[in-house]
Amino acid sequence: MILRSAIFAAATRVAPHVRHTPVITVEGELLGLNFPVQLKLELLQNTGSFKPRGAFNRLLNATIPEAGVIAASGGNHGAAAAYAARALGVKAEIFVPTSTPATKVNRIASYGALVIREGETYADALAACRSRQFETGALDVHAYDHADVLAGQGTVGREFEMDAPDLTHILVATGGGGLIGGMAAWYAGSAEIISVEPETCPTLHTALLSGRPVECAVSGLAADSLGARQVGALMFPIAQAYVARAVLVPDGAIAEAQRLLWEQLRLIAEPGGATALAALTSGRYVPPAGARVGVVVCGGNTDPGKISQP
Amino acid sequence: MILRSAIFAAATRVAPHVRHTPVITVEGELLGLNFPVQLKLELLQNTGSFKPRGAFNRLLNATIPEAGVIAASGGNHGAAAAYAARALGVKAEIFVPTSTPATKVNRIASYGALVIREGETYADALAACRSRQFETGALDVHAYDHADVLAGQGTVGREFEMDAPDLTHILVATGGGGLIGGMAAWYAGSAEIISVEPETCPTLHTALLSGRPVECAVSGLAADSLGARQVGALMFPIAQAYVARAVLVPDGAIAEAQRLLWEQLRLIAEPGGATALAALTSGRYVPPAGARVGVVVCGGNTDPGKISQP
Repeated sequence: MILRSAIFAAATRVAPHVRHTPVITVEGELLGLNFPVQLKLELLQNTGSFKPRGAFNRLLNATIPEAGVIAASGGNHGAAAAYAARALGVKAEIFVPTSTPATKVNRIASYGALVIREGETYADALAACRSRQFETGALDVHAYDHADVLAGQGTVGREFEMDAPDLTHILVATGGGGLIGGMAAWYAGSAEIISVEPETCPTLHTALLSGRPVECAVSGLAADSLGARQVGALMFPIAQAYVARAVLVPDGAIAEAQRLLWEQLRLIAEPGGATALAALTSGRYVPPAGARVGVVVCGGNTDPGKISQP
Repeated sequence: MILRSAIFAAATRVAPHVRHTPVITVEGELLGLNFPVQLKLELLQNTGSFKPRGAFNRLLNATIPEAGVIAASGGNHGAAAAYAARALGVKAEIFVPTSTPATKVNRIASYGALVIREGETYADALAACRSRQFETGALDVHAYDHADVLAGQGTVGREFEMDAPDLTHILVATGGGGLIGGMAAWYAGSAEIISVEPETCPTLHTALLSGRPVECAVSGLAADSLGARQVGALMFPIAQAYVARAVLVPDGAIAEAQRLLWEQLRLIAEPGGATALAALTSGRYVPPAGARVGVVVCGGNTDPGKISQP
């Protein structure tokens, strides 16, 4: 289990490097809902996603060898690890699959990291990364399945509670489960945490049904950020204890949530960043009457030209 | 003069209808500066710009005739007037020039207003609007030159001071001058207010040199939001008293500021929304050592596909 004290410590450690992102209250009618929603705009985080929280907490809590750091990623974690490595003056090698969009590859390279495109999925890139790590001895910065990464992502929960202390239900997208694991550890039952995944990447949904993390086929619109084949071993018991529900949404609902975020709020979310909101706007998740609902909009690394115009 | 008490009253009046927009602190290095900047994200306001503040304050402080409301606009004010009219259950007719981009025309129409495209510039649309108003007797909602509109826009200053009370220098884009007039009235010399205009729309710059509002030719990238030919009569004495400097920036600097906002912060600003920041990122305005600098990012109504990708 990740303790709240570890998340507190992470918040202090990463504070000089990450942005305390804003929360805005959105009237329900703008989103076709009959209740307001508080959005945590984690897409305005440095590097365009929540990932630097975990990456900095991992790097700042480790001794980094001469070989620097190494990571596999669908893109966002790689950008965060590269950004953190540059900030701390160490080398980074980042493995991404060939499916990672150009926006993300360019972002990683812009931070001075060496980018290696290897395999078709995140799992393939991870395998290649592990072989290379064995050769170089670089510090392996896992995208989600490490206690320091989970604690770092948990700082999203701490900030959300500071700025919106009245929330009763919080929707979070799940990929490998670092963000939702950290947030569920922070709230520890004091608010209901709702996992949202694409129907085509149902890793936590399947794991909770099976009683253990299991491999799933992953594909679809949000697979470059939510396309881990299996949730992390560390997050799973936290999810069993503190994730109230695991909801699935179709890709069409994700695209519609992206469109609403742009049309009504002038926010560009990537598919994975709009997935949590999609559970509400599609009606796949309907909170109980009187709920005070929060949603994490967790990433914006996409080509803005792909958002459909009204 | 617009009094702070009028801005206080406006803030109370419009509160149910406008968003208290967030302020974020941006490390200078992200923007190529050697000092941090506090950005007020007024592009996340309802309708995608600051304009509903003034529109609601005008409508809520007037008796609206059967004929409803009428306004001329480059686009953003029209969207705000249409949005406010719908919220209050009255009709709206909005005149825009043919140069108004489709994003803005569609937004106005989406709020149920009748949109009339007339003439090549804002001034042409304003003339047509005035003729029509004379026929119908609708409430004329001027885009900037009305005390209630100025007081409404001044609420941006009140919020910015609440959330970033230490600012010493604040950059604001000027078109007709409603936003900067209201903000300068709010700060009333307690912080230096810096006007920023495109070189191709130098209305306040020219007015301050001439000692009175004068007509200017207007064109270029930001003309759909900053392309009033002349600053308002009401804002001019406020600007003389409380606007410390009027800076001009080339269109290339505006496009570069848009690119930086997207690349570093995942924000889509329209050209007029990025103009104030452009004064800093282009070096056209260099604040004194020790200044604590704020910038209003005032609008996001543009086609996101037009932002150049890294």
